[in-house]
Amino acid sequence: MSAVPQTTATPRIDPARLWDSLMSLARLGATPRGGVCRLALTDLDRQGRDLVVGWLREAGCDIRVDAIGNVYAIRAGRRGNGFEGFGPLLKPSADPARQPVAVGSHVDTQPTGGRFDGNYGVLAGVEVIRALNDADVRTERPLCVAIWTNEEGTRFTPVMMGSGVYAGAFGLEHCLSQTDREGITVGQALTETGYAGRDIAPRFAAYFEPHIEQGPILEAENITIGAVEGALGQRWFDLTVTGQDAHAGPTPLEMRRDALLAAAKLIQAVREIAVSSPDYARGTVGQLFAHPNSRNVIPGRVEFTVDLRNASETTLTRMVERLHEAVRAVEASDGVQIALREVVHFPPCAFDPTLVAGIERHASALGHRVRRIASGAGHDAVYVARTCPAAMIFVPCEGGISHNEIENARPEDLAAGADVLLQAMLEAANR
Amino acid sequence: MSAVPQTTATPRIDPARLWDSLMSLARLGATPRGGVCRLALTDLDRQGRDLVVGWLREAGCDIRVDAIGNVYAIRAGRRGNGFEGFGPLLKPSADPARQPVAVGSHVDTQPTGGRFDGNYGVLAGVEVIRALNDADVRTERPLCVAIWTNEEGTRFTPVMMGSGVYAGAFGLEHCLSQTDREGITVGQALTETGYAGRDIAPRFAAYFEPHIEQGPILEAENITIGAVEGALGQRWFDLTVTGQDAHAGPTPLEMRRDALLAAAKLIQAVREIAVSSPDYARGTVGQLFAHPNSRNVIPGRVEFTVDLRNASETTLTRMVERLHEAVRAVEASDGVQIALREVVHFPPCAFDPTLVAGIERHASALGHRVRRIASGAGHDAVYVARTCPAAMIFVPCEGGISHNEIENARPEDLAAGADVLLQAMLEAANR
Repeated sequence: MSAVPQTTATPRIDPARLWDSLMSLARLGATPRGGVCRLALTDLDRQGRDLVVGWLREAGCDIRVDAIGNVYAIRAGRRGNGFEGFGPLLKPSADPARQPVAVGSHVDTQPTGGRFDGNYGVLAGVEVIRALNDADVRTERPLCVAIWTNEEGTRFTPVMMGSGVYAGAFGLEHCLSQTDREGITVGQALTETGYAGRDIAPRFAAYFEPHIEQGPILEAENITIGAVEGALGQRWFDLTVTGQDAHAGPTPLEMRRDALLAAAKLIQAVREIAVSSPDYARGTVGQLFAHPNSRNVIPGRVEFTVDLRNASETTLTRMVERLHEAVRAVEASDGVQIALREVVHFPPCAFDPTLVAGIERHASALGHRVRRIASGAGHDAVYVARTCPAAMIFVPCEGGISHNEIENARPEDLAAGADVLLQAMLEAANR
Repeated sequence: MSAVPQTTATPRIDPARLWDSLMSLARLGATPRGGVCRLALTDLDRQGRDLVVGWLREAGCDIRVDAIGNVYAIRAGRRGNGFEGFGPLLKPSADPARQPVAVGSHVDTQPTGGRFDGNYGVLAGVEVIRALNDADVRTERPLCVAIWTNEEGTRFTPVMMGSGVYAGAFGLEHCLSQTDREGITVGQALTETGYAGRDIAPRFAAYFEPHIEQGPILEAENITIGAVEGALGQRWFDLTVTGQDAHAGPTPLEMRRDALLAAAKLIQAVREIAVSSPDYARGTVGQLFAHPNSRNVIPGRVEFTVDLRNASETTLTRMVERLHEAVRAVEASDGVQIALREVVHFPPCAFDPTLVAGIERHASALGHRVRRIASGAGHDAVYVARTCPAAMIFVPCEGGISHNEIENARPEDLAAGADVLLQAMLEAANR
């Protein structure tokens, strides 16, 4: 690290302390296969939140919790704590110069989740606060570490619930009334875990979210830092192909209306549409059910899904048009009927160009290989970006594997991402 | 019918009596949707067999039952009853001139089966015997109506059990020890239904099997009689494609190993192989399972089946070679591994050219439109053809639909097939 052109006064994060925090949190809900199961608003999630909140309180932060259970740990700056007034008149600062610079993510996990997804972003924030304390650095603007409620959406839908409520994407009452499989509401679960808060949420001057990539690009290219330009828009469809089931033996080829053959053509069409589209295009058929699914019967009905993603709304729209064209062509060529129903439509999200450029610059200055990248998955940052300039910092994960107990990341990469975060937050908080 | 150049002395079947027999038998195990459920060697199957055997006994036939429960109803000819000797010395005639000319099929059905599959062949045989009795015609060779045990293979495997044992394709003891889901053996079921016979089976001079087509060709071409040239050979495969499951969002197209995309290419390859092959080629993918089968996960494993059929063993072998070539090409292009396992290999069966030509001739003489056709499915005739000259007579079925409660056929077509059968049996039995 001696080659890095920084003065000795520049604060740096402590890689070992960051790793220890990650491993301590990962013990709560640890699975035998090395992963974590800490579903949103369970008692294990409470324990995880309590642990992190305790660390943030010890680090001198003021803890606030809003009505959907989002936690905001605020480290005051020279310009205050991000709020104005007091008592019933308290409200978030309207002046961007006095608003916090935030880092956040989530600590709930998938049922067979890993140790890093979400947790890394929050604990990188904890480490930034600790590093600034160690270096006795006070920023102009306040800083904030946010823990968003129920990002995974496994126990309660919708996904990204806390950040969605924060950004106004979902109504608070709607989310509080959502139930899990046992009929417990989000509101009840918040009360039971002690996270039914009454605090007003701050407004941010800027928001950062470090995260493992959950994809294979950085590892494959031996790059440490991904400066995330935005998140892909997503349009999801359910398709049903109706042909005619018939005996595989006696039915001549030219008299068939084979729903699986038609689906196979569309699976390839989805690939072609994605391959020939710019702007980080993705196209996936992940789920397929054939009926009657018997080896000597021509399938008469096939249901399958299509997941199209793109960084550009214009290109994504064109991809959907081409899917419709492919559907019509296969209907005509194969004598089948195809019903297509859109089930999800997330527009693409572009992160703040100044923040993205800053992440690139800080990564390079710290001696890390960096590239621009798109997030293929949704993150809390996608909703928060509707309220303030935002950006994400990706670090590699092993084999690109996430949402899996074997999810893994290297301590040095996690440390690098936290160091870039620290520099980016310092710059934004002193501007 | 007055234009048909037959003398008034030529015996003809009684269409109404044939239809009444079919409908009487269909009442045993009738389903609410108009089909029949009479699984092999259940008490309903016993009732069906008893009904038909009673009719054959009333028509003057001698009833014999072998050890796998096949029933042989023999109407003696001028040259005897098809057996030589008596007591422990009794054996089937070795002299073809003294062997019976047989008609046969099965009376067991699918769980949601129809009224005609199998039953029609047996009852057309009953009607031939009755028509000859009415016309007071005695043939040179004896005649035989055979009821083969467990053709459908739904309750007990293998399919075509009775005819397979008759032809030596399966061992008797092996079949007797097969169990249903409740652990009941074929041997027990034969004893319980009273069809554990001890008679020696006859050898046939010729064998005919009338059957509904179970396919759409005759109906589509407005043809009444199919002179079946043979049955397609069948080669069935289980394929497993192994790729890598990964997040649909973060994983770039060029880094994917998508097992479903690879399977889709092979589904189209199977179609191409069949379309470009001669000799009644068929190629079908009927069953497919994707894993993990989640809409935003690239499938890492897909299992599917391939069913290839052809009238020519040479062409069928070439089709299998081309399947292997396609598998290797997709492995190379898509970065997946594909395991291929053959699970069924039935060679093609060619029926007796003289009998097939006779069926064509008799159909034309009776004023019916006739064409040569291949059987895409297996039938008892395929095994019996290993022991004597054999042929099948197809009649149209509505929409080509079979193995279904809505299976249907027109009385006049069924009557036409039985009349052709009568002429063909008379010719063979007096030769």
